Amino acid sequence: MRGVPYALEGSFPHTRFTVRGPALNYHSMSADNLRDTQAELRKLYDELCALGLSLDITRGKPAPDQLDLSNGLLGLPGEDDYLDAAGTDTRNYGGIAGLKELREIFGELLGVDAANLIAFGNSSLTLMHDVTVAALLHGTPDSERPWAKEDTVKFLCPAPGYDRHFAITESFGIEMITVPMNPDGPDVAAITELVAADPSIKGLWVVPTYSNPTGVTFSADVTKALLAVPAAAADFRIYWDNAYAVHTLVEAPPVPHPVLEWAAEAGHPNRVYVLGSTSKITFAGAGVAFFGSSADNLAWFTKHLGISTIGPDKVNQLRHVRFFGDADGVRAHMAKHRELLAPKFALVLDILDDRLGDAKVADWSHPEGGYFINLDVLDGAAKRTIELAKNAGIALTAAGSTYPYKQDPRDHNIRLAPTYPGIDDLRTAMEGVATCVLLAATETLLTTHTD
Amino acid sequence: MRGVPYALEGSFPHTRFTVRGPALNYHSMSADNLRDTQAELRKLYDELCALGLSLDITRGKPAPDQLDLSNGLLGLPGEDDYLDAAGTDTRNYGGIAGLKELREIFGELLGVDAANLIAFGNSSLTLMHDVTVAALLHGTPDSERPWAKEDTVKFLCPAPGYDRHFAITESFGIEMITVPMNPDGPDVAAITELVAADPSIKGLWVVPTYSNPTGVTFSADVTKALLAVPAAAADFRIYWDNAYAVHTLVEAPPVPHPVLEWAAEAGHPNRVYVLGSTSKITFAGAGVAFFGSSADNLAWFTKHLGISTIGPDKVNQLRHVRFFGDADGVRAHMAKHRELLAPKFALVLDILDDRLGDAKVADWSHPEGGYFINLDVLDGAAKRTIELAKNAGIALTAAGSTYPYKQDPRDHNIRLAPTYPGIDDLRTAMEGVATCVLLAATETLLTTHTD
Repeated sequence: MRGVPYALEGSFPHTRFTVRGPALNYHSMSADNLRDTQAELRKLYDELCALGLSLDITRGKPAPDQLDLSNGLLGLPGEDDYLDAAGTDTRNYGGIAGLKELREIFGELLGVDAANLIAFGNSSLTLMHDVTVAALLHGTPDSERPWAKEDTVKFLCPAPGYDRHFAITESFGIEMITVPMNPDGPDVAAITELVAADPSIKGLWVVPTYSNPTGVTFSADVTKALLAVPAAAADFRIYWDNAYAVHTLVEAPPVPHPVLEWAAEAGHPNRVYVLGSTSKITFAGAGVAFFGSSADNLAWFTKHLGISTIGPDKVNQLRHVRFFGDADGVRAHMAKHRELLAPKFALVLDILDDRLGDAKVADWSHPEGGYFINLDVLDGAAKRTIELAKNAGIALTAAGSTYPYKQDPRDHNIRLAPTYPGIDDLRTAMEGVATCVLLAATETLLTTHTD
Repeated sequence: MRGVPYALEGSFPHTRFTVRGPALNYHSMSADNLRDTQAELRKLYDELCALGLSLDITRGKPAPDQLDLSNGLLGLPGEDDYLDAAGTDTRNYGGIAGLKELREIFGELLGVDAANLIAFGNSSLTLMHDVTVAALLHGTPDSERPWAKEDTVKFLCPAPGYDRHFAITESFGIEMITVPMNPDGPDVAAITELVAADPSIKGLWVVPTYSNPTGVTFSADVTKALLAVPAAAADFRIYWDNAYAVHTLVEAPPVPHPVLEWAAEAGHPNRVYVLGSTSKITFAGAGVAFFGSSADNLAWFTKHLGISTIGPDKVNQLRHVRFFGDADGVRAHMAKHRELLAPKFALVLDILDDRLGDAKVADWSHPEGGYFINLDVLDGAAKRTIELAKNAGIALTAAGSTYPYKQDPRDHNIRLAPTYPGIDDLRTAMEGVATCVLLAATETLLTTHTD
């Protein structure tokens, strides 16, 4: 990723004017008008390509200035500091549940009692993977047999969703069923019908706060409904990946739903796995991760985990305890992330609004947190948009990535990740993306135009 | 673990004299003489019990003074230090193979080219577990199908061996076959016969340097033979757990055998997985771990690993690079461990020799490195010895632990772990153990005595 001359930005206002023309809404344009618009866009696109860009907005990675916020960790805990609050030597083996004081801090932020939370490893993705492996090879406490012994295992996948979730299930040959996302969470009616009828449906992937990529935060009603759904499989599990629980772009994040309590009240105490990590709070890869569930599930999972490990990196856990102090320390830290991220999200939304607002060939999310902006282009135009961007040196998340098997049935969804690039690169990239969206839209519309 | 009055030590010399008596070798004693000896030992044992000890020599854990050697790590890499030699920001996602400079340091110590080694996670046990899971659920590059789809999968287990190895295979229902350990490595003839005949034998657990618990270091001949064995299963794998590669108690550790090269020369390039970690070099749990293998195996394993993780904790890897500098830095560090450990091993051996030398009711190893002393008592006396010690407040590794399924067929093997206790506690514990060995021996001998 490198900077480009500011001159590029200067060229856009003129072009925007040209593109807008008399018929602002592409759907109302005559074929001739569309062709003229396309010719203008093509010129603009050629200029874009001539810049020889190499920009990347594919992944939800923290930017270097965000990572700098946690540089204090690099010297912690310090040479004489290695005992936790209980007096345990964090430098030695053991303690598979992780440091209690760390679990208390993040339990508060995840809405999970510290007693129901373990702190383990550097990646919640790994915990999701490993709890699935344990179910496949051993069965959950509620399974009749190991999932690997079932003819078929299926997971429900609200989509657009998180590609790495889908990659886990796909890697194990678990059949994925797409269910729609609504503005308040996944489609409960669709889910209810499916899980009530089919005992082979064992799981549901969700990102309940500032969802990847839609930005949707699940309402209490949807959450309670998901926890209460009568499932044909006693071992139906909700992977409650609360990756963005504290990653707000507004004043404060939503209060986390007490899902373990609600699940127990609904008569399904073992239904939920709560996941989280500090990958996008401190350092991605050098953070700490969390798994929360019922006592039964924790006993089961740590039993199997204990076969593969003698314990987590407790020194890194202590490092995080020292760095944050308490949950308010994390909240204060997230406010600094927000200061860095909010302008980037605002910039992307401004450009989308400016460039695409009138043409009516795209919709996009206005997230209050998380790492993504969800961009829906015309049906059939996503792959082409991404291809055009790629040829202009702008890498977007691969087409279809937000759907199971990387198959977006409408070929319309694009995940934008504004966090990593610097603000100038981001502006350049997004102006370019807007051009590609418009150009692809003219192609799509002209294909079917009945002028 | 707590200290006990030094008075205990003072009581032993007298008792030793009593116990030795006129007939030093228990096997030559008359039944009467044995009964007298037993009565003396019983008195001594009662005194031991009266001390109300709570000592633990069960696990191979580093002692606090050993951990202190690495306290420099606790402040590293330091606030402004986060770029690796290639300029990669270790604070962000990615780089599943781990830091090249770290792989170079430990590649040299493990006898593996850095290109064939990944640095991942904090536990080689986890890597062994995960590579087995990948074989179970996906099959290795040489497998006809995932191991989980086979009717039977078997592993060969040289024993006495490492209980956590056996726990992994047991947890997956992999059938374990015990093979004998010889002074130069596992019994190659037995292994050859088994793997040539049975395609369901997919693995062999070994600890090739200062083996757990026997202290055996594999000779070049045995190593080459293992790599060359004609196996009925194309996907037969040797788990080369070189946990103690640098953990020497003498001047220098053995030069590691270049097992990947030798395996390739033998026509079995994918046969070996080399494992190692710094758990007993720096901090147990907060160290770094390594997996070495052929290019094919690495591509296969990292592909599956990449489903569950976006990368290792690179900051911790950088921390270790800064701490050691190079392989000589590790060697110098291990010399400091040796200074702390050698007196403990010497003490245990002295006590065993003093107390058990003449009775001829036990044999033990004289390891040049590693974490254990292997104690073989009379057949049928190990459980009883461990029970006696337990009732006197001295925890020994559970009976049978060094054998598959925790079943020592001769009930004779006890693993002593001298590293963790302080020297006074260790002396107390070992004097107590010696008493228990002798007392149990008298019981065993009297049961079958034909006087």
